[in-house]
Amino acid sequence: MKSPRRAPQTAPASLADWGEDRLVAALTQGLPLDAQVLVGAGDDCAVIGRPRDQRWQLLKTDAVVEGVHFLAAEDPQRVGWKALCRAISDIAAMGGTPAHALITLAAPATTPVARVQALYAGLCKAARKYGVAIAGGETSRSPGPLFLSIALTGWVERKHCVLRSGGRPGDYLYVTGRLGGSLAGKHLDFHPRLDEARWLVSHFKPRAMMDLSDGLAADLPRLAAASRCSHVIQEDRIPLNPGCTTAQAMADGEDFELLFALAPRSATALEAAWKKRFPRLPLTRIGHLLHPSSFTLHPSPRGYDHFAQR
Amino acid sequence: MKSPRRAPQTAPASLADWGEDRLVAALTQGLPLDAQVLVGAGDDCAVIGRPRDQRWQLLKTDAVVEGVHFLAAEDPQRVGWKALCRAISDIAAMGGTPAHALITLAAPATTPVARVQALYAGLCKAARKYGVAIAGGETSRSPGPLFLSIALTGWVERKHCVLRSGGRPGDYLYVTGRLGGSLAGKHLDFHPRLDEARWLVSHFKPRAMMDLSDGLAADLPRLAAASRCSHVIQEDRIPLNPGCTTAQAMADGEDFELLFALAPRSATALEAAWKKRFPRLPLTRIGHLLHPSSFTLHPSPRGYDHFAQR
Repeated sequence: MKSPRRAPQTAPASLADWGEDRLVAALTQGLPLDAQVLVGAGDDCAVIGRPRDQRWQLLKTDAVVEGVHFLAAEDPQRVGWKALCRAISDIAAMGGTPAHALITLAAPATTPVARVQALYAGLCKAARKYGVAIAGGETSRSPGPLFLSIALTGWVERKHCVLRSGGRPGDYLYVTGRLGGSLAGKHLDFHPRLDEARWLVSHFKPRAMMDLSDGLAADLPRLAAASRCSHVIQEDRIPLNPGCTTAQAMADGEDFELLFALAPRSATALEAAWKKRFPRLPLTRIGHLLHPSSFTLHPSPRGYDHFAQR
Repeated sequence: MKSPRRAPQTAPASLADWGEDRLVAALTQGLPLDAQVLVGAGDDCAVIGRPRDQRWQLLKTDAVVEGVHFLAAEDPQRVGWKALCRAISDIAAMGGTPAHALITLAAPATTPVARVQALYAGLCKAARKYGVAIAGGETSRSPGPLFLSIALTGWVERKHCVLRSGGRPGDYLYVTGRLGGSLAGKHLDFHPRLDEARWLVSHFKPRAMMDLSDGLAADLPRLAAASRCSHVIQEDRIPLNPGCTTAQAMADGEDFELLFALAPRSATALEAAWKKRFPRLPLTRIGHLLHPSSFTLHPSPRGYDHFAQR
């Protein structure tokens, strides 16, 4: 006797099946908002205020998880530095200035006190360097990895606030610094481009901006999509860190450089002024935004997806 | 031949050796602050503003960790509700009103999408109920348990802001509701005492207030110490949840009731007005604050310490 046929059992979809962008798009649909949320989920920071206020508040949270963003053996002071600088980088990417941080730490009870103190030393070092006050936070036990989450407020002059969504077809695309190879150590010691971004928004009008955290291949399509544009880049123009391939520069992630779109008419003036103001930090035009019906023919390497199976 | 004697190896102190209060005291010493941090680490929320502003901003972060604050098998919608309500409870404990939340989620890539969607459904339900807008957040992979961290802003009228530190010797100590037995399920379904706290600070002047998250035995000494007082409670007056012992009411934690200190001259008026306004929620005077040189003779059960070895 044959056993009756069963309907094929489909495993429920996991975060790995969906990937980060689809998950975030689904989760952020229909969130409760209010009139003060000028920009909600989907940009580098949330923007809070009334449309005509001179200054808006910026809100950001960002977490580093042991085994994902840093290894257990890594210098905890550098991990603390990285954790706060990641959030500062997002404030910079809006044209803003960071203000007040709260620190959430979950760690196993067996964690040496000295390790946590070193984490805090790194957090405090970054806070002092970039003018952030640490106003509180919370500690909890973790039965697994160490987890360090930063909540950071900041502010931005309304006239200087730059979103991801303001790019237009034809805008030139620029990146600061050099890309790729962050895992060789740079990801723990980077300097968020806070001064550079503030100078940029004060002297020019970037139409769209973000920081590169997941790699150009993941982040640039996000900026383009937010701006309802397509994009094209010249891969041989991408500024590479020493020893890196273009593929690494596209996909490694954690560069924490700025990516922005600028009207072509401002390009010459910007490039000259940048060289004078930041002679040691390259600024590279890597491509431009296109009308959304345009498309590029060759597939690009993918950037970092937190939930991709690897 | 005898091997040479080695100096005894002392293991480095762990978080469990120190316990939560000592750790937090050490970590929060010498944090970078600025003139706008009116109240930093050590109260239920940070208070940000200028001393003479009419309104101050409140900042809070609070995390729930799988295996610590909830079990993997628990209904994710209730877990989401709990996560946001914990932070709302802290805003309430300052006399404030919650405003904008950011959600940080770290979860294994194998987590079913439906579980995360249910978590968010619970978060959104709590947000709508208590007037919170969800302005963004972040998702990350976790190689261990699921972490859910809430960053919540709020505001409080300067004249209504209540700290832990304003209690004076002689002040009566009150708790709302009934204590103990949270693990039976109440910890996932509680209602933060937001309306109650706002009513209280608008009509009376509690001198010190906090919410009970780690149990009366852990939290009351914190309020007393912040107010530089000693304290005495009548254990037979502690309002118990059905089936609970006094020891459980002292030590279980996660009651999320209000604990506050009030000048004795306001006691009669408060008790009468409370009964009228909140007829179904008990308000119980459980003791009073004492001059700091006083002490109580009997040891009390300890409240919840995140890093204690158990």
